[in-house]
Amino acid sequence: MKVNRMEAFSDGVLAIIITIMVLEFKVPEGHDWHSLAGLVPKILSYAVSFVYVGIYWNNHHHLLHTVRTLHGKLMWLNLLLLFWLSLVPFSTAWMGESEFAATPTALYGIVLLCAAISYTLLQQAILKQHAPDSPFAQAMGTDWKGKVSPVLYVAAIGTAYLNAWVSCFFYVLVAVLWFVPDQRIERVFRSDPM
Amino acid sequence: MKVNRMEAFSDGVLAIIITIMVLEFKVPEGHDWHSLAGLVPKILSYAVSFVYVGIYWNNHHHLLHTVRTLHGKLMWLNLLLLFWLSLVPFSTAWMGESEFAATPTALYGIVLLCAAISYTLLQQAILKQHAPDSPFAQAMGTDWKGKVSPVLYVAAIGTAYLNAWVSCFFYVLVAVLWFVPDQRIERVFRSDPM
Amino acid sequence: MKVNRMEAFSDGVLAIIITIMVLEFKVPEGHDWHSLAGLVPKILSYAVSFVYVGIYWNNHHHLLHTVRTLHGKLMWLNLLLLFWLSLVPFSTAWMGESEFAATPTALYGIVLLCAAISYTLLQQAILKQHAPDSPFAQAMGTDWKGKVSPVLYVAAIGTAYLNAWVSCFFYVLVAVLWFVPDQRIERVFRSDPM
Amino acid sequence: MKVNRMEAFSDGVLAIIITIMVLEFKVPEGHDWHSLAGLVPKILSYAVSFVYVGIYWNNHHHLLHTVRTLHGKLMWLNLLLLFWLSLVPFSTAWMGESEFAATPTALYGIVLLCAAISYTLLQQAILKQHAPDSPFAQAMGTDWKGKVSPVLYVAAIGTAYLNAWVSCFFYVLVAVLWFVPDQRIERVFRSDPM
Repeated sequence: MKVNRMEAFSDGVLAIIITIMVLEFKVPEGHDWHSLAGLVPKILSYAVSFVYVGIYWNNHHHLLHTVRTLHGKLMWLNLLLLFWLSLVPFSTAWMGESEFAATPTALYGIVLLCAAISYTLLQQAILKQHAPDSPFAQAMGTDWKGKVSPVLYVAAIGTAYLNAWVSCFFYVLVAVLWFVPDQRIERVFRSDPM
Repeated sequence: MKVNRMEAFSDGVLAIIITIMVLEFKVPEGHDWHSLAGLVPKILSYAVSFVYVGIYWNNHHHLLHTVRTLHGKLMWLNLLLLFWLSLVPFSTAWMGESEFAATPTALYGIVLLCAAISYTLLQQAILKQHAPDSPFAQAMGTDWKGKVSPVLYVAAIGTAYLNAWVSCFFYVLVAVLWFVPDQRIERVFRSDPM
Repeated sequence: MKVNRMEAFSDGVLAIIITIMVLEFKVPEGHDWHSLAGLVPKILSYAVSFVYVGIYWNNHHHLLHTVRTLHGKLMWLNLLLLFWLSLVPFSTAWMGESEFAATPTALYGIVLLCAAISYTLLQQAILKQHAPDSPFAQAMGTDWKGKVSPVLYVAAIGTAYLNAWVSCFFYVLVAVLWFVPDQRIERVFRSDPM
Repeated sequence: MKVNRMEAFSDGVLAIIITIMVLEFKVPEGHDWHSLAGLVPKILSYAVSFVYVGIYWNNHHHLLHTVRTLHGKLMWLNLLLLFWLSLVPFSTAWMGESEFAATPTALYGIVLLCAAISYTLLQQAILKQHAPDSPFAQAMGTDWKGKVSPVLYVAAIGTAYLNAWVSCFFYVLVAVLWFVPDQRIERVFRSDPM
């Protein structure tokens, strides 16, 4: 019962986060394709953030199904995750408006990194409710995506000051890692026949 | 269980999309009916978009009831649909603000066309979960509205550069096609006694 | 099942309508109580609209519990009601910003009148699903509030051009009529001992 | 059934309140860390308000589970609470934008005080549905946080005109009081061995 309401509240917040980003697309003054060109960096940023929030919604959805007992700590870790995700629209807009200038592009990674850390904390708090040899605990043990993502975010933050394209490549790479179903990707990365 | 949450999330996003469009109605500076006149194209655009989002909500609602197994691909096709629908408020506002100038009116059709294609992809992915002779598969086989709409959107996009009224006529026509219950309309279009 | 989703969608839209009105309170430039004074007409308008949307949510909630079969017509009448209610934030903001000038105050009544008519249409469509001697049909037969409200809205629209205070008195009166529980008010108005 | 919908509506409103606060973070004109510095007071205000709305969501969630019969009065007391909480984004933005000037900082406390009073009224109305010796009634009897908070808000409002830091200390203190689980804090405050 309680988990349902936490789920509903999180869904509400995520639905709002994913949607209010479009409020940053100010109607251009001109009425031709050229006047739309200035919006292209914003729309690209929006598309990437949309995928990120979609991934979080998707994973969050699976994660909450493994909660056994809901206590205050889980609620607050969940709110911490929502707090960082709520900063995604602002950092997306700044990155898009600045046309991928160094600091806004780095800030974008910092916000994503904080969200990823919050998600890991939430996951670990839920993990404590499961036996170490449970299927959930074992699945988490091989959570290579959760371990690789922060490293890639740090790489993106660092390279934002060298080359925006390299930095954006890392952001898109993390999104692709999570987006593509596990089985196929894992083969590529772990290069084992399983 | 899972489908319920996807439904709830989609409902949340659609509810926000349909409502934030009103944020584009800036309070006019004057306090008489004349100062409201400038808002008329925006309100007309809003009314059409409201009907479109209402149609999508309505159909989406029926479609999700036919899902048998929810997997990642369905989630992402659903998010793709929500992505294109999330651009409806922006394109509605631009079309209204420009008083139906050619490019904004064409862009409106492009966004609707992309949403329609996404919807078709989602529908086809769900269709694969049903036997070819199931009632759902048969109903989809005669999905003439889903086939006619993209053609009418392309017509609207093309005519936007010739005459805005013709273009808007096509947008209203698609909305009417979907709005009016099937039985009556089908008779007119297919002109068969069934 | 279906009614639940219509309810959830309506709740979402009503929750957004009631909340986005606060986005009209622009942060004043000054930092003292005096600079807040300019917001007073807006806050008063907001409080009245908040009560109105609250009343609609409350009544809508009871009304949907009487739906027996959900069909397309009910869905569209429900969306028509939501359409008019979605214009409440704009007309509230204009009325507040204009400090209750004649036309914005009249427009407020027109929007409320259209919402009331939509609500009545929705109610009558649901009423057809009940026998004429059912408790629901009988309760609707004595729906004096639903009949008095439009008259009071028309009075408010007309008097907006004579005296804003009289007009606002009518708006507050309708809100009070619906807000106060039936039993007490009915005694006053119908002045019968029952 | 009815309580569920009141819960869903409240969750929707709280989710929107907590999220639209980020719309106040206007994208800065510069593209470096320095141009972000001006947003720091806003982000601090936002973080505190996020925690407050999170606390209200959390407590509201527990409180509604104790409702036995839902009647009009509870609905309106719930809406009164949501009304005051809906003013949190505005007062947060004003406090942040003014960099904790006296009046905006005091107004923030007034809004929180009104929300706290509304919450207490809602709690007391629900309490009447329980026997005086029920576990819920006894838990409420020792509701020291609910009694201390208004006093601290009044202290914060008063000290806003003397020193913004002292005032903000009180706001953070109330948030911490509610945030930290009862058992630990109670020992410190009541200084009894239980």
